[in-house]
Amino acid sequence: DLRQQENYFSRETLERLSCKRTDKVWLEEKQSDPETVYLLFSNLCPMVSSSQDDDETAGEAKLCHFRYEAVKDLVEKATTVLVFLGVEKRKKPPSSSSLSSSQMGEVGREPPAWFAISTDEEAAELLKRSREKNCFFPKTPNRDLLKLSEEEAGVVAQARSVLAWHSRYSFCPTCGSSTKPEEGGYKRSCLNSTCRSLQGVHNTCYPRVDPVVIMLVIHPDGNQCLLGRKKIFPVNMFSCLAGFIEPGETIEDAVRREVEEESGVKVGPVQYVSCQPWPMPSNLMIGCLAVALSTDIRVDENEIEEAQWFPRQQVIDSVFRGVQKGLTVPPRQTIAHQLIKHWIGMNSNL
Amino acid sequence: DLRQQENYFSRETLERLSCKRTDKVWLEEKQSDPETVYLLFSNLCPMVSSSQDDDETAGEAKLCHFRYEAVKDLVEKATTVLVFLGVEKRKKPPSSSSLSSSQMGEVGREPPAWFAISTDEEAAELLKRSREKNCFFPKTPNRDLLKLSEEEAGVVAQARSVLAWHSRYSFCPTCGSSTKPEEGGYKRSCLNSTCRSLQGVHNTCYPRVDPVVIMLVIHPDGNQCLLGRKKIFPVNMFSCLAGFIEPGETIEDAVRREVEEESGVKVGPVQYVSCQPWPMPSNLMIGCLAVALSTDIRVDENEIEEAQWFPRQQVIDSVFRGVQKGLTVPPRQTIAHQLIKHWIGMNSNL
Ligand SMILES: Nc1ncnc2c1ncn2[C@@H]1O[C@H](COP(=O)(O)O)[C@@H](O)[C@H]1O
Ligand SMILES: Nc1ncnc2c1ncn2[C@@H]1O[C@H](COP(=O)(O)O)[C@@H](O)[C@H]1O
Ligand SMILES: [Mg+2]
Ligand SMILES: [Mg+2]
Ligand SMILES: [Mg+2]
Ligand SMILES: [Mg+2]
Ligand SMILES: [Mg+2]
Ligand SMILES: [Mg+2]
Ligand SMILES: [Zn+2]
Ligand SMILES: [Zn+2]
Repeated sequence: DLRQQENYFSRETLERLSCKRTDKVWLEEKQSDPETVYLLFSNLCPMVSSSQDDDETAGEAKLCHFRYEAVKDLVEKATTVLVFLGVEKRKKPPSSSSLSSSQMGEVGREPPAWFAISTDEEAAELLKRSREKNCFFPKTPNRDLLKLSEEEAGVVAQARSVLAWHSRYSFCPTCGSSTKPEEGGYKRSCLNSTCRSLQGVHNTCYPRVDPVVIMLVIHPDGNQCLLGRKKIFPVNMFSCLAGFIEPGETIEDAVRREVEEESGVKVGPVQYVSCQPWPMPSNLMIGCLAVALSTDIRVDENEIEEAQWFPRQQVIDSVFRGVQKGLTVPPRQTIAHQLIKHWIGMNSNL
Repeated sequence: DLRQQENYFSRETLERLSCKRTDKVWLEEKQSDPETVYLLFSNLCPMVSSSQDDDETAGEAKLCHFRYEAVKDLVEKATTVLVFLGVEKRKKPPSSSSLSSSQMGEVGREPPAWFAISTDEEAAELLKRSREKNCFFPKTPNRDLLKLSEEEAGVVAQARSVLAWHSRYSFCPTCGSSTKPEEGGYKRSCLNSTCRSLQGVHNTCYPRVDPVVIMLVIHPDGNQCLLGRKKIFPVNMFSCLAGFIEPGETIEDAVRREVEEESGVKVGPVQYVSCQPWPMPSNLMIGCLAVALSTDIRVDENEIEEAQWFPRQQVIDSVFRGVQKGLTVPPRQTIAHQLIKHWIGMNSNL
């Protein structure tokens, strides 16, 4: 099963169909297609409706879908950013390449396309456009975006990361000029025709993805793991250590460096387990198990408040019985949770 | 052995000592320390000396080292970008955390620090500063930077990636203002005091690393692999398919998407093998094996000129006996080469 190690935010519901990003005619047709689904973003959060009648903070959230007619004015606004997210996957997919071919007619209607829209219209005004009840824009993405279904979370991960890039990278880093969105929202080109960024291919024009290592460090005895907490964590919550991969560094070396920086613990072998897109704003969390070579803890107090070795049984209790005295682990939607679960399901001999 | 799957550009010779990046006093002391090693970059390539007397294109290359006295004027120039690379690793390292502590004196002299310098002085003028013979600045980084020792390649990967970021990201992407280098060259801050990028932590201020998937796709029969060639490749050279990981995407899904986009082949299971920093300008190549679910090839002609299934024996001949009729694989310094070698060393049952 390919989904064996599926993490929240990582289900691919849509086919990105990147070959269509440069096809302006196709994209414009899709934009006004009545089957097309639009997601409305305000302040980098999608409009959702809540299953709970009165409480935006509890319950599950569902993405509000809009049709072209309802957002036409927004789509046409010059300040709007539109991102082509892809087309719905067919249940029994014929080869996807047939989509880009002329035999399209033979296999029937194309599946609906999805777009994300980010606009400067007030959130309150945007909410008036919805006919569903209990609609709102989440205020705390770190928490509220964890309430979606697996399918919707995957789409939101893609949309939010790209929109966050547009919102922070609207000027050319090479010359400081304004840039304009292109290719269905996957490129920004400098408006200064003499800019170096227009000669050749440069990453300045493309969305940024920041690779981060996140690791569960196993004690040399195989029966304890190292967890740490930041000051901002809820009481008793401990999680895996994590850090940005630096230029010129491998995943494995980044794991060893970050663990030593943050906890003083030296690490030997590192094993990749699974990864998770984390759209806050656009990280790729690369999850690893790592075996410690030393056990003395000495935290970097700028980043970590406390780090501790936790015995396997205490971790098991916390994961399966919820909040326990002294240790709460992050929720199931985080790769930290999944790494911990992976470890406690494993034999103590790595 | 931790180096089991070591790739070129990935040896960590220096300890990055990131905790010292914010310690201005320490950094300034190190800058003028007579033990400190400076590497001079021009146009994102380091000054090297060649082992061959007359030929810059053949032979091995060795980094030219400079001492403070020889580059003092450059270090003090306002337009110079200085990157703190780290300190030499001790042979028998005491806990590295002791370096950041006050007991430094007790364990003896600190190991030498390394810096990379990028300046606007003419390459010809810079070359005059060297007392070594056969010095030059490589002109073709993709080829010339593959001639270093493993140790030096790792340092160059780090230095070149960070310097390339400085050269392309000297304006604030959020507001278009100028930015200034900070934290030993690992941060750039916006000079516009009202800029959003100064409120909170934003990736706009930090060096960019672009994660790329590179994969060897194995035929369902286990005895052939899929290789492709770009138009710019030398005759008969074929390599692994590769592509940028997109926002909101996992490593595994990126492998499946890029293989299907570029070759039309559908892929099932994906297995991470190893990774390689590739400083052209700052990619992280994430190497995987992938098992094909279909075999028909249909290349994306924008990117790939040709893709083919190659039988294991032909691949083995090419790797071990060099150039063979019909197939040349990339050189050993590439992760593509290492993935291929990994596969031919494996059993045909994945
Ligand atoms: N791409 C990035 N985005 C945000 N912060 C970064 C980035 N790269 C480096 N940093 C720095 O890394 C710190 C977090 O530490 P860590 O996650 O352990 O690497 C942040 O507070 C920033 O100072
Ligand atoms: N970070 C990036 N740097 C350079 N090119 C990118 C980047 N992201 C997307 N691209 C595009 O990806 C193309 C290369 O395709 P691929 O390597 O197969 O993903 C380039 O020609 C660019 O159009
Ligand atoms: Mg961290
Ligand atoms: Mg850290
Ligand atoms: Mg870090
Ligand atoms: Mg490619
Ligand atoms: Mg691509
Ligand atoms: Mg591609
Ligand atoms: Zn520009
Ligand atoms: Zn700014």
